Order: sequence, then C-alpha cells, then structure tokens
Amino acid sequence: MPTAAILGVSGYSGQETLDRVLRHPDLEVAALGSDSLAGETASALDVRLNGSLPRFVPNEDALAAGADIVFLCLGNERAAAVEPPAGAVVVDLSGVHRLVDPVSARDWYASAPGAWSYGLPELYAPEGNLIANPGCYATAALLALAPLAEVVDPQTVVVDGKSGISGAGRELKTSSHAGFVLENLSPYAVGAHRHAPEIAQQLGFPVTFVPHLLPVRRGLLATCYVHTDADARELLEGAYLDSPVVRVLPEGVTPELARVQGTDAAEIGVFVDASTGTTIVVCALDNLGKGAAGQAVQNANLALGLDETEGLVLTGVLV
Amino acid sequence: MPTAAILGVSGYSGQETLDRVLRHPDLEVAALGSDSLAGETASALDVRLNGSLPRFVPNEDALAAGADIVFLCLGNERAAAVEPPAGAVVVDLSGVHRLVDPVSARDWYASAPGAWSYGLPELYAPEGNLIANPGCYATAALLALAPLAEVVDPQTVVVDGKSGISGAGRELKTSSHAGFVLENLSPYAVGAHRHAPEIAQQLGFPVTFVPHLLPVRRGLLATCYVHTDADARELLEGAYLDSPVVRVLPEGVTPELARVQGTDAAEIGVFVDASTGTTIVVCALDNLGKGAAGQAVQNANLALGLDETEGLVLTGVLV
Amino acid sequence: MPTAAILGVSGYSGQETLDRVLRHPDLEVAALGSDSLAGETASALDVRLNGSLPRFVPNEDALAAGADIVFLCLGNERAAAVEPPAGAVVVDLSGVHRLVDPVSARDWYASAPGAWSYGLPELYAPEGNLIANPGCYATAALLALAPLAEVVDPQTVVVDGKSGISGAGRELKTSSHAGFVLENLSPYAVGAHRHAPEIAQQLGFPVTFVPHLLPVRRGLLATCYVHTDADARELLEGAYLDSPVVRVLPEGVTPELARVQGTDAAEIGVFVDASTGTTIVVCALDNLGKGAAGQAVQNANLALGLDETEGLVLTGVLV
Amino acid sequence: MPTAAILGVSGYSGQETLDRVLRHPDLEVAALGSDSLAGETASALDVRLNGSLPRFVPNEDALAAGADIVFLCLGNERAAAVEPPAGAVVVDLSGVHRLVDPVSARDWYASAPGAWSYGLPELYAPEGNLIANPGCYATAALLALAPLAEVVDPQTVVVDGKSGISGAGRELKTSSHAGFVLENLSPYAVGAHRHAPEIAQQLGFPVTFVPHLLPVRRGLLATCYVHTDADARELLEGAYLDSPVVRVLPEGVTPELARVQGTDAAEIGVFVDASTGTTIVVCALDNLGKGAAGQAVQNANLALGLDETEGLVLTGVLV
Repeated sequence: MPTAAILGVSGYSGQETLDRVLRHPDLEVAALGSDSLAGETASALDVRLNGSLPRFVPNEDALAAGADIVFLCLGNERAAAVEPPAGAVVVDLSGVHRLVDPVSARDWYASAPGAWSYGLPELYAPEGNLIANPGCYATAALLALAPLAEVVDPQTVVVDGKSGISGAGRELKTSSHAGFVLENLSPYAVGAHRHAPEIAQQLGFPVTFVPHLLPVRRGLLATCYVHTDADARELLEGAYLDSPVVRVLPEGVTPELARVQGTDAAEIGVFVDASTGTTIVVCALDNLGKGAAGQAVQNANLALGLDETEGLVLTGVLV
Repeated sequence: MPTAAILGVSGYSGQETLDRVLRHPDLEVAALGSDSLAGETASALDVRLNGSLPRFVPNEDALAAGADIVFLCLGNERAAAVEPPAGAVVVDLSGVHRLVDPVSARDWYASAPGAWSYGLPELYAPEGNLIANPGCYATAALLALAPLAEVVDPQTVVVDGKSGISGAGRELKTSSHAGFVLENLSPYAVGAHRHAPEIAQQLGFPVTFVPHLLPVRRGLLATCYVHTDADARELLEGAYLDSPVVRVLPEGVTPELARVQGTDAAEIGVFVDASTGTTIVVCALDNLGKGAAGQAVQNANLALGLDETEGLVLTGVLV
Repeated sequence: MPTAAILGVSGYSGQETLDRVLRHPDLEVAALGSDSLAGETASALDVRLNGSLPRFVPNEDALAAGADIVFLCLGNERAAAVEPPAGAVVVDLSGVHRLVDPVSARDWYASAPGAWSYGLPELYAPEGNLIANPGCYATAALLALAPLAEVVDPQTVVVDGKSGISGAGRELKTSSHAGFVLENLSPYAVGAHRHAPEIAQQLGFPVTFVPHLLPVRRGLLATCYVHTDADARELLEGAYLDSPVVRVLPEGVTPELARVQGTDAAEIGVFVDASTGTTIVVCALDNLGKGAAGQAVQNANLALGLDETEGLVLTGVLV
Repeated sequence: MPTAAILGVSGYSGQETLDRVLRHPDLEVAALGSDSLAGETASALDVRLNGSLPRFVPNEDALAAGADIVFLCLGNERAAAVEPPAGAVVVDLSGVHRLVDPVSARDWYASAPGAWSYGLPELYAPEGNLIANPGCYATAALLALAPLAEVVDPQTVVVDGKSGISGAGRELKTSSHAGFVLENLSPYAVGAHRHAPEIAQQLGFPVTFVPHLLPVRRGLLATCYVHTDADARELLEGAYLDSPVVRVLPEGVTPELARVQGTDAAEIGVFVDASTGTTIVVCALDNLGKGAAGQAVQNANLALGLDETEGLVLTGVLV
C-alpha cells in the first residue's frame, strides 16, 4: 500500500490532511512531521488520535522517511526550503510553488518557480510528481470562472470572497483573536491578496478580488461578477457534469457554507441580475477541504493512479 | 416639547426608534402603537422599560394621538394603508414610499408613489412633512456611490452586501431560524432585491446588487466596485467633510461591523485594486441604526428644525 | 439486508438519522416518511440527496412499508399515536415512551407508559423490539452520573446544561429566531425541563437541572456537580473502558463541543474543586449525534444483532 | 472638574474605562497611559477617537500626571508594582489587591495585601482612596449570592459561570484564537479559577466554581445553585430595591446576555427547582461593564462624592 508523510501536521491544513489520510483505504501513514511536537505521541495533537500512529518526528525526518507521497503543510518560507525527495509525489499546500512567472513568484512569495504543476483536478490536471496545491480563494474563484474565461469581458471581473477564520491558519495574530472576529465582519488585503495573481495566472487576465473575514470557523464563499453574453449556467453545468466533487445547483438554489463545511465538495450557483444583465456565479467550499487538504489528497490520488475521491468526505446530509 | 408617536413599536425598527426617542433631549413620547401588544405596559416589550411610559395602544390610536412626529415602523402593506395625519411630520421606515416611478412602486411594493421625500440627509435632504426613510442596503450603497455617480462607468457597478439577521426583521421565517443562520453564510434574492431599484433611482442608473446573510445580530457592510478615473477618496472625503455621522477612514484602514454596531454612524473605506485599477468603496453601518431608526430620527430632527444628531448614538469606543 | 423506514425525515433528527442510515453498510432505506414533503423527491430535503432514494411518502405509508427497523423522528404527540407494526424494531426518538411511571408520563407528556425499553447502550441495554431513545440532555447527564449514582449524595446533584440551537428542533419559535440566539445566552425551562424526570427515573433520585441555549448550531455540554468520597475518575474510566463511543479524557483535558460536533461520540472530563472537594463531571456530545440520531442507530444495531457502531461517525480529527 | 488618568488604556478594560470617562459629565481626561502606544495619538487605539484627546504617554508618566482619580487597567504584575500617588483615588481593575489574606494573595497573585478596599458598591461600599475593583465572575456571583449568604447551606453552593471572550483580555493565546472559540464551548480552570478565592473571601465560605468560555464577544452569566429554606426572591429584591444598576427580574423572566451587553447594568433571575427544591439564582452582566470598567467608574464616583451612575450606560432598549 502506498505510504504518506505529512510535514507540518500540527497546523490546520496538516491536521485535516491527516484526517483524510486516516480515512483513506489505500494510503498508510509513513511519518508525521512537526517540529513543535517532535517526540510526542499523536494524542498531543488531538486527544482522539490513539497509540497506533507513529510519534511525531522533525519535519526533516518525515521528509526522509521514504514515503511514496509527501504532503507539505508548512508555512511559505519553510516549504520553499524543502528539497523534494527523488521518486516521491510531493503535494505542496503552501503558496510558494503556484506562480510560474519569476517576477510574480519573487514579488508575492520571495520564491522562484520550478518544475511544479498546478493541481486543480476539475480544471488543470496535475502532471509529474511535484504538485502545487491551489489556494482556497483561488480554488473557489477558478471553479466559478475558468469555464467562462473565454466568454467574459476580462476588464470587469469581480471576485468578492468571504472566508471563515481557519483560512488564516493557527498562528496567533490580532486579526485572529476571537475578540476581533466574533460578531464582526471586515475586508482585508483589499485589492492586494496573494491569491489574486494565482487567479490571474490561471485565467489569463487579472480580476478584482476583495476577501472578507467571516465570524465562522470554516467555509468560504466567492461571489463572482462577470459580463458575458454566453449562457454561463450551460457552460458550468457542462464543465462539472461528471464531477463527483463539484456540483452546479439547480436554478434558484443558492450555495450555503453549512452544506459544504467539513466536506471536500464544492457547490456553484448561477444567477443573472435582472436590471443590469450581469452574470453572478457563487461558489462555496470548505477552505480546509476542497480549499486545502481535500484537494491535496485528490491530487495525490491522481498522481498515484488511485480513484480521485478516495479519502475524501463527499457524502453526508448533516443539518 | 415636540411629541412623537411610534407605530409598530414591537418590531426591531420600532424598538430601536423608541430607544433613540428615549435618549432624545427634545422629544417626548406621545403614543406607542402596537396591535399585538395593545393594552400592555411598556415592560411587555422590554423588561428594562418602566412604568413612566404610556401603555401600548392600537396603531390606529397612536396615529390619531396628535403627535408632532409619527414614525411608521410597520410592514409594507400596513404602512401603505396609513393616512398621514394633517400637520404631522411622518417618517416611514417601510419601503412603500421610496420609489417615485409608478411602475417600480407597483412592481416592487404594490404601492403608488405620493408626495413623499426620500430622506438620506447627507445626500438628499428631506423636504416637506412626509419622509420616506431609505433601506439599510440602499443607505450603505448610496453613501459609498452617490458622490461618485458622475464619474463612474454606470455599466459595471457592483454592490456586494452583507447584513446581520436583524435586517430581516422579527418575523419567524425558515431563513431567520438560528439553525440556518449560525455558522453559515448564503446569498439571497440574488440580483433581485427590493433595495436595488431604490439605489438605481437615486443614482440614475441600475447597479448589480447581491445581498448575503451573515451570522451576526447587527451590522451591514457593502463592498462596492466601480470603474472610474477620478480620485474617489477625494470626492468622498469632500462629500462627508463636515458630517457628524459619516466618516471616511484614513488610507489603509478598513471598515468593521464591530465599530458601528449599536451606533447611528457609518464609516467608509476607499481602495484601489493594484492589478485592475478598479476602485473599491466599502461602507459599514448598523442596519438598525443609520440603516433604519437612527436615520429616521435624524430625518425627524431636520424636519422639526432640531440639531440632526439629537437622540443619535455617535460616540463610544466600546471594544 | 435489513431495511429501515424513517418517519418524520424532514426534521433535524430525521435528517440526521437518514445520514447515518445512508452511511450504514448493512441497512437499506425502505421508506422515507414526511407528511409535509410527501410526493417530493429526496432532493427537496437536501440538494445533496440524489435520485436513487425513494420519494417521500406520508408517515402512515412509511410505517406500513414493512421495514425491519422503524425510526420515529416525530413530535411527541404524533409519536404517541403511532401503532408499532408487528415484528419490526421501533426506535422512538421522541420523549413519549421514556417515562415508565404513569403519573410522570401523563404529567410531562400526556402519554401512558407501554412495553418500551429505555435504550442508552453503555448504561441500559435496550430489550425487546420497542426502544425509547433517550433525550440529549439526559444522555449527557446519565453518561456523567450513572456510574456514580451509588456513591454520591443524592440531595445535592446539579446538572448545568448548555446546548446548541438544533436541540430545539426545526420549528419556528421566537426563541429559535437568530436575532434572539446570536451573541446571546440564556437559561430556559429553569428547574422544569422534560429531561429532568428522565434523568431522575434512571438514577433513582431527582437532580437539579438548568439548561441554557448557546449561540452554536450543534453540540451539548453538561457540567455536573456531585458530592462524593469515591474516586469518580476510576469509576467512570471503568464504566467506559471498552466503549467505542464514550471516552473519558485524560486528567486535565477538558471536553469541548468542537471535538464532538458532527460525530456520534461523547467525551467526559473529571475534576475535583480544590476548595470545596466537590466532584465535577463534564460530558460533551452532539445533541443530534449521540444525543439523538447516532444513539438511535446504535440502538437499532443492537436490536438487529449488528455491530453497534455501524453507520456511526466516530473517527475524524477535523479542526 | 476632577481629572482622571487611565493606565493601560490599550487593553479591553482600559478602552472601556476611557469610554465611560468620555461619557462622564464631571470627569476630564488628565492622561492616557500605554507603554505600547506611548507617543501616538488617541486614534491609534480607535479611529473614532479624535484629536482633542492627549497623546498616549508611558504608564509611569500617566501615574505622575497628578490626576484626581487613577484607573489601573494593567496586568496583575504591572499593577502590583504601581506606587499609588498620594492624595489620588486609585481604582485597580487587576486582581492583585482583592485578596486580604496574605497566604491567598501570595498563592493566587504572588502579591501582598495592602490598604485596599474591595469595591462592589451594592454590597461592599469602598472606603478610603485605594479601591480594588472586583473580578467579573466574582461580581456576578456575589450579586447573586451575598444577600443569601446567611441563609444557605455553605457546603453545597455551586457557581456555573459562562463568559464571552473579552473576559480573557486582548492578549494573544491559543484559547483566544477564533478558530478555537467559534462554534465551541469548553470549561476552563475547572475548580481552580482566581475568582473563586475572591468569592469565598466576601461570602465567608468557599463555593464550587466552574467557568466556561462562550463563543460571544461580550457578556457573562453566572448560574448559582444554593440550598436554603429562605425566600431568596424576597431577600434579593430587598437588597437591590433602590439600585439603579442591579435589577431583579419579575418571576418567570430569565436573564439574557443580549440585554446587558454594552451596558453597566446587571440583572438577576430567581427560580426554584420543582423536583429538588434547590434555589437557582442567575446573574447576567457585561464582563467589561459592571464586571470591569463600569464598576470602576461607579467606585470612582463614590470616592469622589459624585452620583454613582455618572458616565455609566444604564438605559437603552436596543434589540
């Protein structure tokens, strides 16, 4: 059975990747890397994890453990410094390998592009062993917009994003303090977020992007505005007709965070504004699911030749 | 001292209007109308209200009480049926008297326009005795956009609105059930909300408007996207230079719900997207404050020749 | 394969029971009853449900469908009127069959006791075909207190309960309106909640019980205070040593809603107050999981001779 | 007019104290102390604060500014190190001067008792110039229990506390991260919280106290359980008959966070459990209002011979 190493398992995306790997019928844990928890048992991360898992080791050791698949759930700087082990499939959940233009990569991530393939399976099948896992906002925006890229006015595309707090990671920051987040809403990084160049790169033109921080734990919704004469619903339904992960909702049904939280699915609603004719495409997903760990495992499955949905959470009719 | 009657005092906007009237140094309660609470003492609405207030009476009696100022805090249908008493200033917080085009008024509210003046004091000073109080989303969108109306491309204006649950009123509906609202986010009335024609009427052109329901009790934020060559910041700062109610935030400071909740103030942030040049204007206010009761009292003050801020909550550095 | 009918599938507990049945490897859906949705396809309840499920039928028809196991997810009055079909296992998630004392049953539920067995598998294994599924608060209180019943002072037991809104069901009520629930907390039914006699019946003595409504969607926590000279930790660890569902947390670890939400597990923390010597036992569970649908399926599994955890959600290290 | 200096104005309690001082008709700001913001204008703390306020100065300078009243809104260690200026009234919002027993003071705060007076005006009028402002939980518990101290069984008193996140201060901690707080609930410092000895000191006997962290921004509720033969309602109503700050709610009305948030009032509900006869007293207040800054200003008013409610927020019928 293929084996997996997770580096940075104590962060949000690491923990969620571990969750998918543990559900996965065809993946086995080879090593769990965490510099902060090295030496501890798995229950130090989550009391639900029991003794059958290996102890945490330094990330360097996890990288060298000879796993078939390596998940990099590290900060940008740490991820940029990793030397991919020969022969292994590496899925990088950080941002440093997403931008292929050297200037953009340098400006946004102080990194340099390499032989990494952008992996958003429904739109851009990853190739080779080195896979850059997309950003959460970029995933939602691209699922909504990529099938329309040829038919919209590229000058006027707007992506208004809203995300729960887990999108900001586990690090302690003033803007992640519950006293700031609760019963509040605010835009941030207005017109200057790192996921904007990623969206532009994949679409072929820049979009206006403003993210907002929601007082919810999980989930992300992108409301996208485009000017087009095409039938956006038809194009989107066509694009995701056979997808087990992305569903285009029936006319009149609006996407909801609650229906994608804790899952690896995404849902898309399509609308036209009555007075202006503007087309509105709304995509909802879980920022830690399809927006991070779920997509990482989906990418890994494809690279390993497994069914793309193994280990993913796609069912459920929870309230 | 001028006297005030509040009709529909048991709804959210009625209760908040009462709050401002009780704080008001130059207004006295003449009558409190509520068909559902008629006959009860004020403490039936809120245990904090004591015996010095008059008992609730049927709305019809409150209307006939001879007050100098009448606040209509009723549903649309009820408000449309009210016959304004001669000589009184009437501020209607419902939507039925906002649209002046007969077709729009009929289509959106099944009402007919009359001699009502649209009262958004910073932009459109109310005239005469009959004042239509703007909608909460419309107030935010207009504060953000009206000073720019002459300089933007009218074809591509987008207003992405987010509001707390109190914007939906006290009525019991599936979409107001906490089991739906909590830890959730969803757009609603996409491209088809009643505040859209109101915004269009005041700006002179339609905009694309999508509201979203936030899991917060109070507060509203409108993120507005426009294409313009003008210096939006300069125009907005000029428009609100002397306003005691609307403040344009310094460069780099983003509006926040938490800073306007429970107040009658509004705040505006201005940004330009680095990659597309799109101008982004964000307005935050309390949907029950500047978006309803606070603006109603502000309008009443102007009509009565009082200082416009009397009774309003504008100070406070609460966490 | 055994077949299941769910009556009242459109309520919270019905929807969650359906979720478990769909996950269940050894149960098949025979019929889905809902008087309000009769005739509609399953997607009318949740857009995620697809066409392979049978259409909703009136509850009466679902009852008559000849299923091996019938889940009653109805209101109390409706559940009391159901005539159990011969030969079927019936799990009643309502309260009407929980109290065995005729006076209590009449006073609290206007019902009469019958041949129903109280099914809380870790403490009271259900017997026979008719199973009364415990209340959510009662489950938490009993898991915390039953193993200590013989060693505590029965005069002074306190259960302070806190539950998310889904515990109140999908019905529209003022106290379930998000404008009341959000950013709020209040006790309700103080010293007079229906789960109190249920707890008393199983423990053999009454306890003081005060529930509080939390501004969260799901989850329930019961903080229980007892006076005892015994080692409560030892007794509780002994009681749940082999349980796949209930875990007693290590010393110093506190139960958390977040760790049980969306699951059918329960967790228990044990503490002693330094200054008074009072023992504090805290139990957390999901009111719709171990507190309702999860326990119902667990009871059904036992009655059908299946592994008790089939269909249950017990794993997961979600953030 | 008397002048006030606030030390530690950039923390939650400092900011809220400033809010009350700015509302106060008979207090003037002498100095605003903040080591982290020293040199900056007031708008650095809150964009709503304008240029008429003095710039922030180091706390030491604020202490030496010769103010008539000094509010210490500092951490425990910093507060313990302050040398009270002669002649000034000093209100210490930290915990270090609350415990009068040398062993307790040392064990809980590593401090030594001095000539400080515990100031909870409705129960313990502060004397002299040095006033220890009570803790938020202690205030709620004492308001509920002190009038009953003589008539309850002191062996079995339970205080189950629930508080919003602002009670934990502005410091960045894992337990204050929104990813932990949102859609969650957990007990903390179970049976070992610093406010327990404070409650015990004032009542004359220890109580069992368990605090819980709520996913709300502000507000605190204490559910207190006592065994008594006395009529608790009568005693409590008598105790607060003339209080402008504390109201005992009518029979059957339950306290709510929403009704005290943002105010300096407290409300108390009294109940008796039907099955056990246990008396339940519930007190709700805002942890930053009556639980901190509001009470601090109330204490200052009394020490200065002013009306105790000046600067306090006591009215309002906000939704």
